[in-house]
Amino acid sequence: MKTRDDYLALDAADPLRGLREQFSLPAGVIYLDGNSLGVLPKATAARVQDVITREWGGDLIKAWNTADWMHLPERVGDKIARLVGAAPGELVVADSTSLNLYKVLAAAIRIAQQDAPQRKLIVSERSNFPTDLYIAESLCQQHGFSLKLVDSVEEIPATLNAELAVLMLTEVNYRTGYKHDMAALTAAAQAAGALTVWDLAHSAGAVPVDLKGANADFAIGCGYKYLNGGPGAPAFVWVHPRHTDSFWQPLSGWMGHAAPFEFTPSYQPAPGIRRYVCGTPSVIGASALECGVDTVLAAEAHGGMAALREKSLALTEAFAALAEARCGEYGVYVVSPREPARRGSQVCLALKSPLQEAGYAVVQALIARGVIGDFRAGDPARLDQVPHILRFGFTPLYIGFVEVWDAVEHLRQVLASGEWQEPRFNTKGAVT
Amino acid sequence: MKTRDDYLALDAADPLRGLREQFSLPAGVIYLDGNSLGVLPKATAARVQDVITREWGGDLIKAWNTADWMHLPERVGDKIARLVGAAPGELVVADSTSLNLYKVLAAAIRIAQQDAPQRKLIVSERSNFPTDLYIAESLCQQHGFSLKLVDSVEEIPATLNAELAVLMLTEVNYRTGYKHDMAALTAAAQAAGALTVWDLAHSAGAVPVDLKGANADFAIGCGYKYLNGGPGAPAFVWVHPRHTDSFWQPLSGWMGHAAPFEFTPSYQPAPGIRRYVCGTPSVIGASALECGVDTVLAAEAHGGMAALREKSLALTEAFAALAEARCGEYGVYVVSPREPARRGSQVCLALKSPLQEAGYAVVQALIARGVIGDFRAGDPARLDQVPHILRFGFTPLYIGFVEVWDAVEHLRQVLASGEWQEPRFNTKGAVT
Repeated sequence: MKTRDDYLALDAADPLRGLREQFSLPAGVIYLDGNSLGVLPKATAARVQDVITREWGGDLIKAWNTADWMHLPERVGDKIARLVGAAPGELVVADSTSLNLYKVLAAAIRIAQQDAPQRKLIVSERSNFPTDLYIAESLCQQHGFSLKLVDSVEEIPATLNAELAVLMLTEVNYRTGYKHDMAALTAAAQAAGALTVWDLAHSAGAVPVDLKGANADFAIGCGYKYLNGGPGAPAFVWVHPRHTDSFWQPLSGWMGHAAPFEFTPSYQPAPGIRRYVCGTPSVIGASALECGVDTVLAAEAHGGMAALREKSLALTEAFAALAEARCGEYGVYVVSPREPARRGSQVCLALKSPLQEAGYAVVQALIARGVIGDFRAGDPARLDQVPHILRFGFTPLYIGFVEVWDAVEHLRQVLASGEWQEPRFNTKGAVT
Repeated sequence: MKTRDDYLALDAADPLRGLREQFSLPAGVIYLDGNSLGVLPKATAARVQDVITREWGGDLIKAWNTADWMHLPERVGDKIARLVGAAPGELVVADSTSLNLYKVLAAAIRIAQQDAPQRKLIVSERSNFPTDLYIAESLCQQHGFSLKLVDSVEEIPATLNAELAVLMLTEVNYRTGYKHDMAALTAAAQAAGALTVWDLAHSAGAVPVDLKGANADFAIGCGYKYLNGGPGAPAFVWVHPRHTDSFWQPLSGWMGHAAPFEFTPSYQPAPGIRRYVCGTPSVIGASALECGVDTVLAAEAHGGMAALREKSLALTEAFAALAEARCGEYGVYVVSPREPARRGSQVCLALKSPLQEAGYAVVQALIARGVIGDFRAGDPARLDQVPHILRFGFTPLYIGFVEVWDAVEHLRQVLASGEWQEPRFNTKGAVT
């Protein structure tokens, strides 16, 4: 039987332990929500001050040249490319995840319309992050396509048929932490004549991604989760080079124009991925994002994403095992896959009868103790199949093993003491 | 004949002079480019630091509640609403000008398709800001509409006919500073059965705008020009309440959903203007924008937009008159309207033969002297009709009368000395 000292020893032996020093972590907090909003890098505040006071305040309009704001989307994009198996010049930072999905899904639909007009189906998971489904719904309405949602991963293969235009998946499911096999599903979808769109919101900076190796078609991702870019950070978009120049994405703003400062009245898209930039880039936001991306790139000196993945799997396996061993008697069970290859960097727990409704209050009681995870509601009509979820993200850059132990111990105490039943933990309204 | 002392006296008597103290203005610079990028408010750096270190760094995910990030789009939107004649709850901050135009133009097209399917024409100016034309071009392609561009304001009335679906104009033309009569054109377009979309990029914070008084249908605007929100600041979008709930704008991200944290797989737009928010708001960017908007609202204690407008007209008239009086002998003439009602807060100059090609170099020589304006190329094939433009913006919040005098004196010296002919001023590449 392991003890807390064993976890302290794991931290002491962790070759990535020093990476934690890159962050400002509030005292007394075990932050297991980096999959919703990454923590603040120490470098960010000073960098943003410099952008505001020196670049903007001092150079004013000249900073578009002196600070090269013009190429910020590519410069930060090239850094993210190193984390997701893309080449320089293939990925840009722009807008939000939702908007970037609109761009690439519109492109995929256009390609399908041209190459295979009988294909009018987009397949995704009902448990995909809702904004992806909402954007797909909008584009389906516009183009006479249908959105088919599967309830389990096992249903996907049967959808890879002659009607399928696009398979659109978030590589790591936001609710369950299930990690799809990107290479295998991409190959299977393409063998069936379809295109793939991958949302890397819970992948980039969390698990190794190899877009080119998987031969994916399109990908997007989020800047404010594992990339630590700050609240509402710009997102990113990648398009396989075989598709980039074939389509004018519909959000055709001037910053994606081939010559924006010629001020010509007709749109001519820039060559390459730059055409996926729309309006004027968010200079402050992209600069903060760059600091966040740098915290992940700092791991390159210590084995990079492979080393981060190894630690992430050790953290999540330790949490899952401890949660079941120490809290199983209170009805806690693990929803996320235990198979490493199928697990992202998060662990989702649920509660069995008679506590199947208690998840929200338990998460609130944990937050009151400084253990920050989040709650994702299940389907009230069938909680046995789609349970309420207690979601915990493990960012290997700054989470250590003893925090895993302590978080589980807090969970045990919350359940053993019944403190989650206090009225203050049962009042909804929190956004997490 | 007035002298520099007369302009110093105007500043001394200016009741708005104190508003300048809100800004960090670089020493030795006469900044006449606030219509491209507003200057840095003194409050911004500290506010952004607070958002980064206390709200994000300290409260992490809880800041969505504790700092009410969730309602930042509405909170800053309500402040901008006061500047443009809109009511609280009618305007939100979101995304970029280009993206917001995509949303409202898609809405206008949809309304036209439903109410008047024979109307398939969008009319705008060839000299409208290009991103507006590019977005319109994209939507026209998607919906089988046509974009008709007029070359002069006088051509607009004839286009208000039974084919017109949408009249889309930037209220103050970015090139010439010509200010359309929003109320009259809106009434005429609506009398002809069409809708209006107004871009307020060069209006909000620069001239009084009365969207409700003009009975406009849709409006968008920019955060980083006269609103001083910083480079790439979020933009804004307003929809007349009679249209807001009638349409699901196509960029249907989760933050415009009626219940984003219910995580339902189907899109249900939020009631009211919130549905025009798409992805997660740029918290840092919107917070910086709020500081900029506050600098304009500070004028409310001194007569508000009406007082700013009075000063703006005095500044621009003084600059136009001085430029022609003191630099006319070198071929300088004024392109912007001299009639106050038709002039925005900028003055555009051009150069007659034989200096009609010298504009770029003259602007560069002025910038080298610390007088920052910008250059907008004309039509090389017909410079007599569409000349190269030397563009100067006058932001009454922080520009004074003596700067008008000094800027003209620098221009006179640049032309009289011939220093603009130095090779260093004739090398293109600057972005302004």
